[in-house]
Amino acid sequence: MKVEYFMRLAIRQAEIAMDKGEVPVGAVISMDGKLISASHNMRCLQKRTSAHAEMLAIDSACSVLNSWRLEECNIYITMEPCPMCAGAIIQARIKNVYFGCYDKKSGAFGTVTDLSCFKWNHKPNIYGGILEEECSRLPKEFFKKIRKEE
Amino acid sequence: MKVEYFMRLAIRQAEIAMDKGEVPVGAVISMDGKLISASHNMRCLQKRTSAHAEMLAIDSACSVLNSWRLEECNIYITMEPCPMCAGAIIQARIKNVYFGCYDKKSGAFGTVTDLSCFKWNHKPNIYGGILEEECSRLPKEFFKKIRKEE
Repeated sequence: MKVEYFMRLAIRQAEIAMDKGEVPVGAVISMDGKLISASHNMRCLQKRTSAHAEMLAIDSACSVLNSWRLEECNIYITMEPCPMCAGAIIQARIKNVYFGCYDKKSGAFGTVTDLSCFKWNHKPNIYGGILEEECSRLPKEFFKKIRKEE
Repeated sequence: MKVEYFMRLAIRQAEIAMDKGEVPVGAVISMDGKLISASHNMRCLQKRTSAHAEMLAIDSACSVLNSWRLEECNIYITMEPCPMCAGAIIQARIKNVYFGCYDKKSGAFGTVTDLSCFKWNHKPNIYGGILEEECSRLPKEFFKKIRKEE
């Protein structure tokens, strides 16, 4: 299944983040069934608030497509986006959003709030829980490790 | 008054955006009463979804302070931030948010929704309506011009 194929690419990105010691979140963007961009969280390494996986994937896709509008694009994220990233997805007019595990602390597409429900210029379609177990494995490992080190 | 001083710097940034044909929004960030960064909207010129004034000002401040946490910072924006920028402000742990005019279509600190009311890791203090009339003048001019050209 195409959705699962792209989600597995996002999981691979999360693994790269994990290897770098970052909170393991990955994101990829597709258009017409083709990969447009792939990124992972680099907030700590880049020391930049906006260096979340989704923001970097959106920046890359804008660069590839030479446009701030990503109307025909889909995004696949291993974790439910935070309000910044959910807002960026709406701003970019991304068509479909597929995410893996839910985020109790920062999830802005259904968990803490659902930004897709307000009357913005654009309303993306949201599909949560894609390959949920596989997507939640890395964050669970990461936070377990962090707690052990504290 | 210090708040008005920084807001006038943000208005100057909005003027620069206007001169470039961008939606005129400006943002500056201060710390300990000193200017840290100043930016204006460049979404169309950069062809990048995330090139809003606030995002660029946050990126710059992270670079200046060498940190993704801007805990001791204040941000001054000519217009109420959209959900992406409001989310970035929360993510950056910015202390105080001063904005000029309210945004009926995209305002995410009180108008369409209020992202500061949810239980995230951080809750910024929000002060809207600072130099509201001066801040609303440029967007009004901009959209009047756009409508004329259509």
